[in-house]
Amino acid sequence: MATQTKPILHGYFRSSCSWRVRIAFALKGVEYDQLPVNLIKDGGQQSCVSLTVALSVPKLTEEYKALNPMQQVPAVEIDGTTLSQSLAVIQYIDETRPGPRLLPADPKARAQVRMISDLIASGIQPLQNLYVIQKIGAEKMQWSQHFIDRGFQALEPILKQTAGKYCVGDEISMADICLVPQVYNAERFKVDVGKYPTIKRLNEALLEIEAFQVSHPSRQPDTPDDLRA
Amino acid sequence: MATQTKPILHGYFRSSCSWRVRIAFALKGVEYDQLPVNLIKDGGQQSCVSLTVALSVPKLTEEYKALNPMQQVPAVEIDGTTLSQSLAVIQYIDETRPGPRLLPADPKARAQVRMISDLIASGIQPLQNLYVIQKIGAEKMQWSQHFIDRGFQALEPILKQTAGKYCVGDEISMADICLVPQVYNAERFKVDVGKYPTIKRLNEALLEIEAFQVSHPSRQPDTPDDLRA
Repeated sequence: MATQTKPILHGYFRSSCSWRVRIAFALKGVEYDQLPVNLIKDGGQQSCVSLTVALSVPKLTEEYKALNPMQQVPAVEIDGTTLSQSLAVIQYIDETRPGPRLLPADPKARAQVRMISDLIASGIQPLQNLYVIQKIGAEKMQWSQHFIDRGFQALEPILKQTAGKYCVGDEISMADICLVPQVYNAERFKVDVGKYPTIKRLNEALLEIEAFQVSHPSRQPDTPDDLRA
Repeated sequence: MATQTKPILHGYFRSSCSWRVRIAFALKGVEYDQLPVNLIKDGGQQSCVSLTVALSVPKLTEEYKALNPMQQVPAVEIDGTTLSQSLAVIQYIDETRPGPRLLPADPKARAQVRMISDLIASGIQPLQNLYVIQKIGAEKMQWSQHFIDRGFQALEPILKQTAGKYCVGDEISMADICLVPQVYNAERFKVDVGKYPTIKRLNEALLEIEAFQVSHPSRQPDTPDDLRA
């Protein structure tokens, strides 16, 4: 594959879908550039980001809309093409870059990884996404808690069956890449993650790993000072 | 792979995610059994299904909850394991069964197929899913229209770039498998699909294909008589 130029990640420090892609790049050891996209009202006020402000109306440029018509982050420029949808990006990185596999070789284990990833990426995250809870308004905290709890109640028994050291067996996979940012979101929305012992254990184990640390929302170029680790 | 016993699809005639799996089985020429799961209040009243009833509270058994803790359809018993999440199931079928590829061989084309599939499966369908619009209540029609239109506005320019005869080039793929059931949902929610000429054209072309016809909601074992084609 042509990899002459570094991929460019258009993302946002706190977007869980951007974090997924950052973890994948880190696990694969792929160098990339970040171009932060402001999901914040009136754009550019990075120094006064707060939970409240970050949850308000996004202002995205027409330029960005051309990169990702869905007007969400991330979008990734890579190998002369532009991709959006984090799981599509992660699987593309996995299929074109050397380094540890992000999906196992065995078809059944691959299916389990994708099942867990999709449970999070289709069954939980979209329902507490910025553009959805904007429409919910005042009830957004309860709404988000409801759908995260509903998803975690399903995820916990599945992980109990599939997990070893990590979500599926003992190798890190795309499922782990999806889990950690979703737990981070759960904590932001004050979900009691202690109710889900397998999820909690896996999240803690994964946060020990460098690729999950360097990609963390508290350590990105657009992380505001008061949220910086 | 062990394929001695036929896969069992636990689904629902009108569920778009069940339809996706039915299309994949049909394209691959895989025989399977269907066990309908009633997404209908009080269960078992299949002869009086109507749009209104089908949108009311689902009653799923504890047995089914063991198969799919997310309490959604589909779940598929296959090769001695149980899988949920339709895109995980479709890719498992693709990777373990002969027949036409559901994802292209070229990594960039594969990424485009996954990007389009995920835009629908994570960006549109979850927001007009039964268990979400139940929570929305009286506004569910406008809510669903809003998010389907939002998704189609993004999908249309992407498909304009990727499509040939079908969503990505001239071969049928997982992207097409996601598109047709989503257009069916759009029509149920009275979205004017004519505003999206590429989506409309692709949907019409795909509905000419036998695999999309035999799997159609109007032709399933649990399709009520008044909706039967």
